[in-house]
Amino acid sequence: MYALVMSEPSSSRTKVRRLAERASYDPATITTILDEALICHVGFVDDGAPVVIPTIHARIGETLYLHGSPASRMLRSMRSGAEISVNVTLVDGLVVARAAFHNSMNYRSVVLFGSPRIVDDATEKWAALEAITDHVIPGRWADSRPMTEKEFKGTLVAALPIDEVSAKVRSGGPSDDEEDYDLPIWAGVIPLQIRPSAPVADSLLTSEVPAPDYVVDYRRP
Amino acid sequence: MYALVMSEPSSSRTKVRRLAERASYDPATITTILDEALICHVGFVDDGAPVVIPTIHARIGETLYLHGSPASRMLRSMRSGAEISVNVTLVDGLVVARAAFHNSMNYRSVVLFGSPRIVDDATEKWAALEAITDHVIPGRWADSRPMTEKEFKGTLVAALPIDEVSAKVRSGGPSDDEEDYDLPIWAGVIPLQIRPSAPVADSLLTSEVPAPDYVVDYRRP
Repeated sequence: MYALVMSEPSSSRTKVRRLAERASYDPATITTILDEALICHVGFVDDGAPVVIPTIHARIGETLYLHGSPASRMLRSMRSGAEISVNVTLVDGLVVARAAFHNSMNYRSVVLFGSPRIVDDATEKWAALEAITDHVIPGRWADSRPMTEKEFKGTLVAALPIDEVSAKVRSGGPSDDEEDYDLPIWAGVIPLQIRPSAPVADSLLTSEVPAPDYVVDYRRP
Repeated sequence: MYALVMSEPSSSRTKVRRLAERASYDPATITTILDEALICHVGFVDDGAPVVIPTIHARIGETLYLHGSPASRMLRSMRSGAEISVNVTLVDGLVVARAAFHNSMNYRSVVLFGSPRIVDDATEKWAALEAITDHVIPGRWADSRPMTEKEFKGTLVAALPIDEVSAKVRSGGPSDDEEDYDLPIWAGVIPLQIRPSAPVADSLLTSEVPAPDYVVDYRRP
């Protein structure tokens, strides 16, 4: 998959310019980051000015799906065939260097460009909505009260091909200057993770329904 | 502070259009979100197309500071006085509704618009760099090997006034449809937090330097 980006940038835009040694065009790396991140940030141009909006995404094969209300600015701008940019970032840790200048973060980030299409095909749209629900909580779609036709029609789904894409990854310890390694200053990494705490049942639960395993044991992949 | 946004949207752009009941223009809410978030997402227009880049920010009073290499596309676009959009989002939990359609997230999000200025004043620039370092790890700036003049000159700092700004907040349990509350489907919230695990000392630490308290006890505010 991602034939265009197996070994090199698919366009001059996705060529990582800054700190190019952190760049990756490896499909498995890109897929993992897209699937692990809970949300993405979508950029679009509205009246000549940039707008950034956080939203939930899901990936099916080589397509990224977004959804929303037909009234949203983001989805209205997509209707016009305009280009968007999508960024997904996972912060894996804080890199504590000896030098203030070299403090950094360990992260995995993906950037995508393209012109999304609005999904009209009902089968594809149902699959996308299922994927978006299960992207956040795997298993939830099958357990939920299904979407009605009215809800389905009232939701817009957009599809962006994952081809103009790149990843940027930093991992490992600090990179200090040679002459600073002897300084008596602690250096290392503080790993960070998104962790769930115990699920809180809705106070309006009317019957004794136990929390399903995928809620009790919830973890990001 | 944020005089312009004490009680109402400061511009038609920051007026929250979708789900307006989640909107907030309260300075304390906005400040807390900006300070708690590790990173922000900056949107700018490059050659007519939107670009979104994750970066570290810091707030001093009513100004948001960003930094980077003078070679970065983001900072080059700021040099031209062009407008940017900044989004900061904290995901507080997953809202598990009975209906697939009503699944949601609890989040706190801030959106800012404006034309940043490049900070030339040395005093302001030093303060911004200290704030950016201590935004990520409070206390680190004073403990680090200080920035050299060369490093200082090689870093660009941009300042964005926090005035065209709004917040959007969702909290609490699911909002299902009246007729769905009797369904035997679990509903509730899975709270999420960013949690550190034990700090990992750099393998190249040459002396027995203990990890400082602000590293060992690291927590987001």
